Amino acid sequence: MWGIELNRCNGVSLKRQIYEALKVQMLDGRLREDDVLPSTRELSRSLNVSRGTVNEAYDMLIAEGFVVSHQGASTRVAEGLYIKTTPSSGALADVAPLPKRLTIDFQTGKPDLRLFPQFSWRQLLGRALADTSIELYNYSGPQGLVSLREELSAWLMRGRGLAVDPDDIFITAGATHALHILSMILCGDGRQMLVEDPCHDGMRRTFLNNGCAVTPIPVDSHGMQTRYLPQEGGIGALYVTPSHQFPFGGVLPATRRAALIRYAQEHDAYIIEDDYDSEFRYSGDPISPLHALDPQRVIYVGTFSKVLFPALRIGYAIIPERLRKQWILKRTYIDVQSPLLEQVVLAEFIRTRKLEGHILRMRKQYGQRRDTLLNSLREYFGDAWVAYGDAAGLHMTIDFPEMKFDEAFAENCLQRGMRITPLERHCIKKGQHISKLLIGYGHLEPSEITQGIQYLSQVMRELK
Amino acid sequence: MWGIELNRCNGVSLKRQIYEALKVQMLDGRLREDDVLPSTRELSRSLNVSRGTVNEAYDMLIAEGFVVSHQGASTRVAEGLYIKTTPSSGALADVAPLPKRLTIDFQTGKPDLRLFPQFSWRQLLGRALADTSIELYNYSGPQGLVSLREELSAWLMRGRGLAVDPDDIFITAGATHALHILSMILCGDGRQMLVEDPCHDGMRRTFLNNGCAVTPIPVDSHGMQTRYLPQEGGIGALYVTPSHQFPFGGVLPATRRAALIRYAQEHDAYIIEDDYDSEFRYSGDPISPLHALDPQRVIYVGTFSKVLFPALRIGYAIIPERLRKQWILKRTYIDVQSPLLEQVVLAEFIRTRKLEGHILRMRKQYGQRRDTLLNSLREYFGDAWVAYGDAAGLHMTIDFPEMKFDEAFAENCLQRGMRITPLERHCIKKGQHISKLLIGYGHLEPSEITQGIQYLSQVMRELK
Repeated sequence: MWGIELNRCNGVSLKRQIYEALKVQMLDGRLREDDVLPSTRELSRSLNVSRGTVNEAYDMLIAEGFVVSHQGASTRVAEGLYIKTTPSSGALADVAPLPKRLTIDFQTGKPDLRLFPQFSWRQLLGRALADTSIELYNYSGPQGLVSLREELSAWLMRGRGLAVDPDDIFITAGATHALHILSMILCGDGRQMLVEDPCHDGMRRTFLNNGCAVTPIPVDSHGMQTRYLPQEGGIGALYVTPSHQFPFGGVLPATRRAALIRYAQEHDAYIIEDDYDSEFRYSGDPISPLHALDPQRVIYVGTFSKVLFPALRIGYAIIPERLRKQWILKRTYIDVQSPLLEQVVLAEFIRTRKLEGHILRMRKQYGQRRDTLLNSLREYFGDAWVAYGDAAGLHMTIDFPEMKFDEAFAENCLQRGMRITPLERHCIKKGQHISKLLIGYGHLEPSEITQGIQYLSQVMRELK
Repeated sequence: MWGIELNRCNGVSLKRQIYEALKVQMLDGRLREDDVLPSTRELSRSLNVSRGTVNEAYDMLIAEGFVVSHQGASTRVAEGLYIKTTPSSGALADVAPLPKRLTIDFQTGKPDLRLFPQFSWRQLLGRALADTSIELYNYSGPQGLVSLREELSAWLMRGRGLAVDPDDIFITAGATHALHILSMILCGDGRQMLVEDPCHDGMRRTFLNNGCAVTPIPVDSHGMQTRYLPQEGGIGALYVTPSHQFPFGGVLPATRRAALIRYAQEHDAYIIEDDYDSEFRYSGDPISPLHALDPQRVIYVGTFSKVLFPALRIGYAIIPERLRKQWILKRTYIDVQSPLLEQVVLAEFIRTRKLEGHILRMRKQYGQRRDTLLNSLREYFGDAWVAYGDAAGLHMTIDFPEMKFDEAFAENCLQRGMRITPLERHCIKKGQHISKLLIGYGHLEPSEITQGIQYLSQVMRELK
């Protein structure tokens, strides 16, 4: 009756069902402009519902302008309601699916979450929540929590000799987020972003995402080769990983550091220093950040995704004074600020020196795993390989001079239950590093590493 | 001696002090290329430190390439180290400072956090943390937690009759974040973003932040006047608030809704529906979202900043299939994903129906505050005013036909300890709404509202 079929079992109220059924007919053209709707008395009788229910449905249609009703007159369909709906495209996101089960996962950049001190973290969370002040729930500003910035400032001095004021530090939702904001500020107007080649593919995509012109500068085993820096203008920024070049592992020598600074000064460009894993250096002292050489020219970017855990989404950037106003404006209109609770807990984690204790423990574990990986490589590959970047971090690059590793190789490995990264994936100029693989080992136990390398040697023989 | 002054009380290790002192001299030119450093024996004697300490400092300088040392030969300064540091600009961020104390704050968009059910929220947090699986700490993907999207899907059906699949929902870090991503996707290439005029100034700045061409379409008391939609091409998207136009409060009539849909279809543009506060409608049923009329053409954006609390940083967008791949790519290279813990807790808050209970309680409270505000206005201003948008939300617009409210008025109020918003601040075409004020009342207790309006009447007499 009137195109309305009521379902009294589906939990949707009868007034909403009447409203929806009439609305659909007005939109698809079955009911047309100026058509008269049945009186509420008539409709309530034919549908066997109370007149009040019909009245409420009509009130919804009136409130939203689907029908027009004048005191005492009939209820009529409003003008211009006919629309067609857009068909769905069927073009669903085809984000690369993973095979059902990975036997061995040599992906890079993954910390071992099994060793994360959940108990301490939960304890601090509980303590943070005991503070019932509403400030924990309110806006707290785009720069991030003051107490966290104070603790970070003290920690950066203790651990890296970096002298920064809490006002210099800007909390982010991780390193990618910092690079997103920085590329908007520094290269959003089409200026060039100079990057190392190879360079982390995800970071390069972050720059491209913002329309930056990305220019590769070749890397050797020490890092960016500053003699290849272009002499033209229009340079917005240089993105470098001087403490542990990704993925080659070089420590940028002082002479090149000074050259980078002079270059940035001459071109009025900024240097973005991504210090993504220098906490885990296995011999000698931590490398001094480039930032210390010229704090008004170098932007230092750090993250807790590897030191603590990825789901935390907290990183930070040390921003020169000249860029702070732009940073605050960009951040405000990108995502306002970071959530507060995690900032409170992280500040306490640093203040109580739990962060340093955790890093020390993890450095020892990761160091043992690095040794296991090197030993396993010797065991299964003899001396037919060379390691790069094994002095720090959670991954290393292995050169097998006889081999060719491309995306087809990676895909073949995936089909066999093993995830591994050809170095070529991170190269802008292709074909230079075809014999190299990236092996992430930090998240694997020694026995998993040994089995993984054994399996890798087997797969490499099969696929050769 | 050798430009090194050691401080044995400042907590910085002696090796680091030696390293830093020598480094500084190489960078500022006091030590030059090829200069010979003192032998470790000589330096340790003159500084009265152990030779091992000097050795460690030299090792740091060698590791970072500041000096070059060959077996048996002297240690010499590397080439090309001289740099000048960039002077600090002194141009610190001048983010509008607030006066020390606000007596009355009529800012819009603020929920009353004093009434937030902290206890329930903390309980759910505690329960979430009892799950010791490492998945709570790991990457979980750019779309957001599945269980949260499932609960959101069910809640949107229960509360708004919106039929969306969990796969249609994309978790964001709030509404601003959703609009940031959408404007990159839809208008990043210079296409126009059509907005209501007036339109929330922060949202307009989010579009401008991404280089969108923002075109204003005039609003009347019902919302966007669709007859002014431009007929040219190059339209990327339309940004509208059809359930409670910001800041005028109109409910967009069905005829204009249908016209918007047809327009978007003809111009192959998308409609962004920002449903920022429709949870708090004080009479009648909730307004049906525009989204239901054409789910493949309308992007629905919601946030929990007002319903729950701002520091949560969780919102969501319902994305048509055609845009999902782009969304996932953009999100991945903007900030990877949202933190996980809050998503787990929010999912539970919805599943246990605590969200609906909270909204019901708050709607009652906010409704009483709205009545108090209207009564206070009658008490202190007689009938010399007209209210707009008082049927829903946490703010309303008041027209005082005799008055002129500009930024100078707002600044004068701030000096008197009262924060209030001239409607003109949200207008793109200026001068049309000079007699209107925006009053946010949701976060104020009834007594604060009454005192605030009394104070407003006093200030208005003084400043007239």
